[in-house]
Amino acid sequence: MSLNLGVLVSGRGTNLQSLIDKSTSGEIDAKVAVVLSDNPDAYALKRARKAGIPAIYIDPCTTKPVLVGEAEVEYMKVLNEYKVDLVCLAGFMRIIKENFLNEFKWRLMNIHPALLPSFKGLHAQKQALEYGVRFSGATVHFVTGHVDGGPIILQAVVPVYKDDTEETLSERILAEEHRIYAEAIELFAKGKIEIRDNRVITGGLDE
Amino acid sequence: MSLNLGVLVSGRGTNLQSLIDKSTSGEIDAKVAVVLSDNPDAYALKRARKAGIPAIYIDPCTTKPVLVGEAEVEYMKVLNEYKVDLVCLAGFMRIIKENFLNEFKWRLMNIHPALLPSFKGLHAQKQALEYGVRFSGATVHFVTGHVDGGPIILQAVVPVYKDDTEETLSERILAEEHRIYAEAIELFAKGKIEIRDNRVITGGLDE
Repeated sequence: MSLNLGVLVSGRGTNLQSLIDKSTSGEIDAKVAVVLSDNPDAYALKRARKAGIPAIYIDPCTTKPVLVGEAEVEYMKVLNEYKVDLVCLAGFMRIIKENFLNEFKWRLMNIHPALLPSFKGLHAQKQALEYGVRFSGATVHFVTGHVDGGPIILQAVVPVYKDDTEETLSERILAEEHRIYAEAIELFAKGKIEIRDNRVITGGLDE
Repeated sequence: MSLNLGVLVSGRGTNLQSLIDKSTSGEIDAKVAVVLSDNPDAYALKRARKAGIPAIYIDPCTTKPVLVGEAEVEYMKVLNEYKVDLVCLAGFMRIIKENFLNEFKWRLMNIHPALLPSFKGLHAQKQALEYGVRFSGATVHFVTGHVDGGPIILQAVVPVYKDDTEETLSERILAEEHRIYAEAIELFAKGKIEIRDNRVITGGLDE
């Protein structure tokens, strides 16, 4: 039985598009059931609607970068109405708090454009360039109360070249984000993700 | 003209041995001119003597993990007596302070068994395993006043497997440490290391 995904977005939605495409092509055994955004102008909402997916703006009712209060309740309610099995953050620019975390414990993933624990927070690619690392990458992790600090599901590495700009590095990382986010969802769909001592042990997709 | 290396060690000296071997074989255009240790029982001292390299214990005169005071002066004096061009820390368990840093500015390298800035400090491999990262690695960097925080010269990546122990991961990383430490020294010897805005730009060895 195919997995129902709920995707939370704030921006242009490149990871969302990748998930839609891979769902349509059958590359992942999951379908995007609903897309929610805290930004009425998010291009991601347009992408969802173009693909015939319910795409809903829900007012976060706060200028702080958090999802709390009645808005939090509303997000959870809609996700449950659409029978979402797994919530995927895809450029959702708000910190998820306790109630939501409990509701979707071990069913809430995020993708971060760095090799965590390096370069948490915003502009991870820029941070990596400024630090001068020779490799960066992407991380899919479960979301917990520690921002960008939850148990790692998958990572991917990319080289950083000396003439890289934030754009060229971001593009290289983005290709890996799309690949490992899909792989993590597929592992989840196939029951290949095991939690031991708050760490994630993944089986191989072909095992 | 071959580079004179001064190597500072506290322990078993596996990286020292690699440098001695690669110097002897001609893989790097550098020779280990002198080995200094803050630990009279360091096995690294035996390795050096076996290779016919002056190996000197200099009492650090403090129980704190720092190199300061008269000991610091003595270390600098001996390194200069042996006309050391480049100082390589290889498991030297003391923090290097301002006077020494100034004396050997951009001529002082360290190797760290992690992909910095992740997992600074002691037991980096254990930290990586406990965090649950999927990749770790090694970093050669210039030493500055920020412990494990100086400009990166080279890095190497290794996978972390789910059945890894601290030993198996350390061994995998160590092979990369040996490779990139030698490469960084060779880049230095060939004048292929450039500093721009406190960051390191390396040329290729075959350029």
